[in-house]
Amino acid sequence: MALIVQKYGGTSVGSIDRIRNVAKRIKLEREKGHQVIAVISAMGGVTDKLINLAKELSEEPREREMDVLLSSGEQQSIALLSIALNEIGIQAVSATGRQAGIITSGSHTRGRIESIEPRLLKRFLADDLTVIVAGFQGITEDGMIHTLGRGGSDLSAIAVASSVKADLCQILTDVDGVYTADPRVVKKARKLPEISYDELLELASVGTKVMQSRSVEFAKKYGVKFEVKSSLNNNPGTIVTEEHAAMESVVIRGVSIERSQARVTITGIPDHPGMSGQILGALADAEVNIDMIVSNIASDQLARHSFTMHTSDLGRAQSALKPVLAELGGDASIETEAGIGKLSCVGIGMRSHSGVAAKMFSALGKAGINIGMISTSEIKISVTVEEDQIEEAARVVHTAFDLDS
Amino acid sequence: MALIVQKYGGTSVGSIDRIRNVAKRIKLEREKGHQVIAVISAMGGVTDKLINLAKELSEEPREREMDVLLSSGEQQSIALLSIALNEIGIQAVSATGRQAGIITSGSHTRGRIESIEPRLLKRFLADDLTVIVAGFQGITEDGMIHTLGRGGSDLSAIAVASSVKADLCQILTDVDGVYTADPRVVKKARKLPEISYDELLELASVGTKVMQSRSVEFAKKYGVKFEVKSSLNNNPGTIVTEEHAAMESVVIRGVSIERSQARVTITGIPDHPGMSGQILGALADAEVNIDMIVSNIASDQLARHSFTMHTSDLGRAQSALKPVLAELGGDASIETEAGIGKLSCVGIGMRSHSGVAAKMFSALGKAGINIGMISTSEIKISVTVEEDQIEEAARVVHTAFDLDS
Repeated sequence: MALIVQKYGGTSVGSIDRIRNVAKRIKLEREKGHQVIAVISAMGGVTDKLINLAKELSEEPREREMDVLLSSGEQQSIALLSIALNEIGIQAVSATGRQAGIITSGSHTRGRIESIEPRLLKRFLADDLTVIVAGFQGITEDGMIHTLGRGGSDLSAIAVASSVKADLCQILTDVDGVYTADPRVVKKARKLPEISYDELLELASVGTKVMQSRSVEFAKKYGVKFEVKSSLNNNPGTIVTEEHAAMESVVIRGVSIERSQARVTITGIPDHPGMSGQILGALADAEVNIDMIVSNIASDQLARHSFTMHTSDLGRAQSALKPVLAELGGDASIETEAGIGKLSCVGIGMRSHSGVAAKMFSALGKAGINIGMISTSEIKISVTVEEDQIEEAARVVHTAFDLDS
Repeated sequence: MALIVQKYGGTSVGSIDRIRNVAKRIKLEREKGHQVIAVISAMGGVTDKLINLAKELSEEPREREMDVLLSSGEQQSIALLSIALNEIGIQAVSATGRQAGIITSGSHTRGRIESIEPRLLKRFLADDLTVIVAGFQGITEDGMIHTLGRGGSDLSAIAVASSVKADLCQILTDVDGVYTADPRVVKKARKLPEISYDELLELASVGTKVMQSRSVEFAKKYGVKFEVKSSLNNNPGTIVTEEHAAMESVVIRGVSIERSQARVTITGIPDHPGMSGQILGALADAEVNIDMIVSNIASDQLARHSFTMHTSDLGRAQSALKPVLAELGGDASIETEAGIGKLSCVGIGMRSHSGVAAKMFSALGKAGINIGMISTSEIKISVTVEEDQIEEAARVVHTAFDLDS
């Protein structure tokens, strides 16, 4: 008998029929003899409806009250799922974020989980009850309601799994697991049986939107092994876990791409201390999200800085940099390019295998794909290419690293 | 500066526009320098929608989960009203039943308020905030959510007013106050400036559905003076308070009627101990709500028992009594009559004025209205009459006691 924590998103509980289906899935686990805690989101669409009501009253509704308002959505879904379970003979009880003992800090609408006091959850489990926990919410030390922001229910599930020392945590979602690449782009992409936290983090941060980074970081911090799998079928998903020796035999775990990227390059500015800070500060003030940063000194001792960002940020970046350039003086000039894509290879095996970058660049070269900027981290290599070549680039690299099925 | 507790029902907060109106009403009180705690219900219709969702999943949804589900309704309305207030410049915060410190006992879906710990409410008031409290809900000592059942928001408001020692508690509703009689029946009915708890209780229990009895009982127990007034205008309402000497100068405070009553009379049964218990027990087991009970012994030493009930209970009562009569033996027989009405006169002045019953009966007699059963309590006299004469009976008695405007 195992203790399983399952997380179901808003789509999975988006209608009365779907709630019934989730109840049946949980019943299957109970019939195998397992104990189940299900952490669930609000019914799909409910949160948006509530936001619209609030926006009718105020353009900028108080965040404290938005937390009170939105957390009611999960309170409804946990009650309904518990009712559905009891109806099919599974003794179930609901628990709000507060009742589950989820203590948060930080600000309203983007609370952080500080700790979990699972006293009540443990009491319910001791009574052999199935427990339905409201995801996405918790309370502060002094009893105020917090929501956890986007992806908060995943975070709740992982935190609950950690606090009750669950044997398994399953994130049930509308994807089948984590793939070596986006199957819509790379037909030969394979589902991974296993991936390390760090690899998923790097893949997530470059656009493989399986889970929010902070949920993966939380799982890594507390050593919670979890499985990403489909809520629509019973296929095995992808286990996300700590890295272990066997994982290193695979050089590259996966390939991901980002489209609609743009580049800004500043040239001809004197390389004095604090200058980068000045430039980046101006971009941050303008709320431009910078991704890659590449800087070097040209032979003329003048610095050359390049940044990438989403195309939609390009205009704002250019306006923000204008006054900075004027201030920097000299022959400073700015050059921009839109319509580029970014390709990343991720794998912890990279550390122990030399020549990974060479292999990647040579594969791209053979396919006639020019590389723009290059940026590397310990387990990731990213390059920019022309956007219209990004899909071909992904396929070429996927093949080069023997990822094809 | 006064501290005012206001209660707004589901209709008053039934749409975004109405929530805005309530916010404006509260703002008016703030501008007069008063502090306000508003206790509100869920938006009209929301509770029914939630009940329907639950019923789709289960014919008999668990009451524990219904409490979790339904209490989300007020959680939404308190957040929305707080948002509306902040939008018009009134600093407001919401408080769930739990946050307001409302501790309940009893069973799910019909919790009883045990106590209120208004620590947080007092902190909010000390910060000069307007507080919006979720009515109809509380939590048990061990943190489970309870709803208070029908009329629960009135109860919440009165309990909150008591706990914070409010200067005034206003129950804002869709009636203008308490009248000497139903104005739809008695055109000359007047709004009462003042009524005692006991009088309102007697009027409420005979069908003047201004408030649920238990809210009035709670107010009486804790000495909370409150005003019943309209949420649609600013007319003064009716103050409900402890009785005082001046109130006794009025013999009858009001007249109320109930229609669709039926009578069951059992005759010819030997008058032995425990027999009444046997009869009433059988009716209780069949969930028949007995109203008036009149018993006497006829000259032949055989008892004669009459009961009134709602017409819809008559069939059930007859079936339930059949086996009991067989058991009692003798010449026991049962006689039933439907199509009767009940008229009640209520007033604490009755205690100090003799001849009240005589005056009532004589007024009815002059109008050619026959009296059936008679039942009296310390501050009430009730009689049954033919249902088609009940309205005329109310008007005649209203006039006889100088209640006409």
